[in-house]
Amino acid sequence: MKERQLIAELLAPLATSAAARGLSDDGAVLTPPMGRDLVLTHDVLAAGIHYLPTDPPGDTALKLLAVNLSDLAAMGARPMGVLLGLGLSPSEDTVWLRAFTAGLERGLERWNIALWGGDTVSGLAQAVLGLTAIGQVEPGRALSRGGARPGDTLHVSGTIGDAGLGLQIALGQAAHDAYLLHRYRLPEPRLALGQALAGVATAAMDISDGLLIDAKRLALASGVALTVDLAALPLSTQAAACTPDDTARLERASAGDDYELLFTLPPGAAAPAGTTRIGHIAAGSGLTVLASDGTQRVPDRLGWEH
Amino acid sequence: MKERQLIAELLAPLATSAAARGLSDDGAVLTPPMGRDLVLTHDVLAAGIHYLPTDPPGDTALKLLAVNLSDLAAMGARPMGVLLGLGLSPSEDTVWLRAFTAGLERGLERWNIALWGGDTVSGLAQAVLGLTAIGQVEPGRALSRGGARPGDTLHVSGTIGDAGLGLQIALGQAAHDAYLLHRYRLPEPRLALGQALAGVATAAMDISDGLLIDAKRLALASGVALTVDLAALPLSTQAAACTPDDTARLERASAGDDYELLFTLPPGAAAPAGTTRIGHIAAGSGLTVLASDGTQRVPDRLGWEH
Repeated sequence: MKERQLIAELLAPLATSAAARGLSDDGAVLTPPMGRDLVLTHDVLAAGIHYLPTDPPGDTALKLLAVNLSDLAAMGARPMGVLLGLGLSPSEDTVWLRAFTAGLERGLERWNIALWGGDTVSGLAQAVLGLTAIGQVEPGRALSRGGARPGDTLHVSGTIGDAGLGLQIALGQAAHDAYLLHRYRLPEPRLALGQALAGVATAAMDISDGLLIDAKRLALASGVALTVDLAALPLSTQAAACTPDDTARLERASAGDDYELLFTLPPGAAAPAGTTRIGHIAAGSGLTVLASDGTQRVPDRLGWEH
Repeated sequence: MKERQLIAELLAPLATSAAARGLSDDGAVLTPPMGRDLVLTHDVLAAGIHYLPTDPPGDTALKLLAVNLSDLAAMGARPMGVLLGLGLSPSEDTVWLRAFTAGLERGLERWNIALWGGDTVSGLAQAVLGLTAIGQVEPGRALSRGGARPGDTLHVSGTIGDAGLGLQIALGQAAHDAYLLHRYRLPEPRLALGQALAGVATAAMDISDGLLIDAKRLALASGVALTVDLAALPLSTQAAACTPDDTARLERASAGDDYELLFTLPPGAAAPAGTTRIGHIAAGSGLTVLASDGTQRVPDRLGWEH
């Protein structure tokens, strides 16, 4: 499919906001919301690296949106719109493109965001999908990784490790489980939680590379010491079934792709529903992992390092 | 070079604005300028497609900025900041990355824009460089391709065809000429002109795929007929030397990569300095190309079709 045809037939019909100008101009024109800060993020997913070429294309489109919206959630922002950089190889044929844009449309509707513009490139050696997402937040309320203070408690949303188990299934290394595979292919950005935490949490980030490595990054950005209590790790029923001991818990906590929110609360603050307290912040630096018997456990690997 | 090291050593030092938060958070936080619209654009350059792997990496960084800023210029916007999506293959080694980020720094300084954030990905089969650029414009003054009206005159900035000749040099198909090669590798976004045209020109766009094909797109977006007078085509001294006749003029006008502005003015409006009147708008539809003897000339190819 020619780029012109792709834009006219599959993308322009999704670009219904006035800002997008029907994708016919060199850029989009946005009147920013009065009295709000904007949060801007850009994430890239590459075929064979961040998703599998065998993943359903509609799921890949939803994942591309979700990982970017997860960044907005981590900042406490409400998403408004996106710019799409669609880099295509010969593998992304018309069937793939129709399924991808159908998934994109579902995601735009689901999260109530606009497609404002972007660019398409064909003839690449592999698909490289870039997305810029823009959201809004009340002035001064955007969350940061750097605000955790000694005495804060450490919390995480949802359950941890499901997506890592789902990846094993997608790679044919584990028995099929629809829930775990879904958690890998279709992460859910914690937008409502992030907005509820804006102005409340002292620090927040989303977990993309593994709970432990991301927790270490939060500690570093905040200049504090952070302790994770492995026994408190929230596991889904499916994950719990294949997490018999602390060694398996460490695998869940370093698998990545969770797209849950990791955040700290000041002493006395009530934790939102659907979240679990998994540790605490102290003066000092670095990450401590406590095993179920209370001893320290230093894992060989904390998560994905790029 | 690991992505973490690339960000810490080469990119974070360039991200000096408060909005970037030192590249340590999941996104950037921007307080939008009061009483201004924002213009958003995203363009992707891929190695071997939009630039040559043999191009100096610093030039590639400047070109990545320039092609996006050219889109902002075409909308009449003043650039503010960018998000960078750096997709790297094993070919982009530390030497390449240092030269690329040095060029990026020169561009940010030259055009007085901020690096707000982005993403890095390594392990790609080829480099794929995405950039999102954001600028500001007075409300309602953003230019569009769709505003040309019968009776308007058609104008272009600078000279046309230099970059196409420069590409031939870069490919080893033509004798070296420093000026033409520079015009291919380092396009100059016409930012001051674009801002001067905001609220004055009836339509504008930048020329990336070729003057003729882009002129046809402007005519289509505006719902008008457009005539280009080949004899009026502005040529540099270097391009004029290898443009003996209308056949060569058609090649210059369909070569692309000019990143000059094509715009229409209402009757009686004064054309800005450094621009050339090359045609006019009438009721109807489609593109007419007039040869030097006044006859119509229908070229086989109007420019790059993707």
